[in-house]
Amino acid sequence: MKNQFYSYIQNLQNQITQALEEIDGKAKFKEDVWERPEGGGGHTRVIENGDTIEKGGINISAVHGNLPKSMQTYFKVGEVDFFACGLSLVIHPKNPMAPTVHANWRYFEMYDKSGKLIDQWFGGGLDLTPYYLFEEDATHFHQHCKKACDLHHADFYKDFKAQCDLYFYNAHRDEARGIGGLFFDYLKANDSFSIQDRYDFVSQVGNVFLDAYLPILIKRKDLHYTKSQRDWQEIRRGRYVEFNLIHDKGTLFGLKTKGRIESILMSLPPHVQWHYDFEPEQASQEALLIEVLKKPKEWV
Amino acid sequence: MKNQFYSYIQNLQNQITQALEEIDGKAKFKEDVWERPEGGGGHTRVIENGDTIEKGGINISAVHGNLPKSMQTYFKVGEVDFFACGLSLVIHPKNPMAPTVHANWRYFEMYDKSGKLIDQWFGGGLDLTPYYLFEEDATHFHQHCKKACDLHHADFYKDFKAQCDLYFYNAHRDEARGIGGLFFDYLKANDSFSIQDRYDFVSQVGNVFLDAYLPILIKRKDLHYTKSQRDWQEIRRGRYVEFNLIHDKGTLFGLKTKGRIESILMSLPPHVQWHYDFEPEQASQEALLIEVLKKPKEWV
Repeated sequence: MKNQFYSYIQNLQNQITQALEEIDGKAKFKEDVWERPEGGGGHTRVIENGDTIEKGGINISAVHGNLPKSMQTYFKVGEVDFFACGLSLVIHPKNPMAPTVHANWRYFEMYDKSGKLIDQWFGGGLDLTPYYLFEEDATHFHQHCKKACDLHHADFYKDFKAQCDLYFYNAHRDEARGIGGLFFDYLKANDSFSIQDRYDFVSQVGNVFLDAYLPILIKRKDLHYTKSQRDWQEIRRGRYVEFNLIHDKGTLFGLKTKGRIESILMSLPPHVQWHYDFEPEQASQEALLIEVLKKPKEWV
Repeated sequence: MKNQFYSYIQNLQNQITQALEEIDGKAKFKEDVWERPEGGGGHTRVIENGDTIEKGGINISAVHGNLPKSMQTYFKVGEVDFFACGLSLVIHPKNPMAPTVHANWRYFEMYDKSGKLIDQWFGGGLDLTPYYLFEEDATHFHQHCKKACDLHHADFYKDFKAQCDLYFYNAHRDEARGIGGLFFDYLKANDSFSIQDRYDFVSQVGNVFLDAYLPILIKRKDLHYTKSQRDWQEIRRGRYVEFNLIHDKGTLFGLKTKGRIESILMSLPPHVQWHYDFEPEQASQEALLIEVLKKPKEWV
């Protein structure tokens, strides 16, 4: 399974890289290959200062070895070995009318000291963070999320959409980071699903990413915008930074276990603003977005 | 003692507000008075878009009531009442040649349910975060820190300078946030010092702030700078954000106990950048700063 999934994310990384470079037309992804001293490593691909993409990264990694102490505590296990691989991506478009997107698909294995597999699961999802709300974009994105889910179980979309709204939440601001999508974790084999079924589902979600996001990016990337709309985007990107540095388990975990900092923090937006007590005008497009972020909606 | 210290920080807030407004010449501090539903409140003063100060805040607050659950755990006590007051300030100058400064002075009391005082202590300090290193500025700042300390105990400067280097440290970057200053906490009455001695020391440190910082701000605020030096300032401000959102106990504590968000996050800089794997040129002024941040120096 680990080889099967790693091949899958390698191909997906190439596919997404190529599609985004084509749309951007100007900038190219730059690849850094890195090694983890304790075992494994990754391929970090970053694009900056494009015509369409101001900053973005598509990273894959596969790491293994003794499960670090902090992860033993987190997973409530003793001294075991592990293997983990995954793809993480964040795209910050330049145009404030185009939403930021984040996605992640990952697979985890644990072994006892004799090398016997004792646990394995998948996790991941995808979610959208608009600066201006186009309802049709939110619906389009969620329709594709739902389509991938419905092929596997009638409850998946409802459940994983709800988990996404719960997870990507800036509790200290009482608002969602964006308009959601899917989030799932600890997808293990059970009476209803084999681990191969889980793989089939997670790769289905991975396969839907480009269809879910690209049409939105293409539609919005060349729209006209003003200086004050750009400022609004940079202020909202501040909330993105707040989520990633205060709440995101993956980011904090990476920082605390001394992961490769530049690969972890490539998710942070390129230009960001914080103003004291900034409030959009009543009934403005900006205020409308906040209203939706305060109360997650059903988009499909 | 609580009235004595609260009067002191009220006066200090007025004094610092006035001195900074005079230097800026253009912008004025705007005051927001807020109340804490469970008891107490604060006066938040923020200045933005000045000629000299791009963003800054000087806040005082005095809060009281039942010690929140999370603070009971933190302080390892049961159900007690508390009183806490303090002044917090952060100044982000516009000119990258002028350093950001942060300072905080606070006083805490705890009572049992009959209202008897069971514990009391002071905490605080001040520290400097330059974007370009002028050694004479670092020395000037630390000389004033030392002067305040030396009037109270021969070991204070050495001890509190070391605690500052230890505290304002971005562990995930293996570098200090800035060039330090003083940091102290849990200054209680003991065999050597009465609580009045502690007050005398902390107010001495408060009194030294303007002399420690203003001459540096005045000297650097109108120096010429280039676009790329401004970019470097905004990139380094990213490290400031990382420290405050990932490591700073005061910030995280405020967010987790649902403090007034805008007063807590007024510390974040107005314009910030993150680039992937940005490295200054070898032997440049920018590289020189990093070198000093990697290895805290003795400035006096």
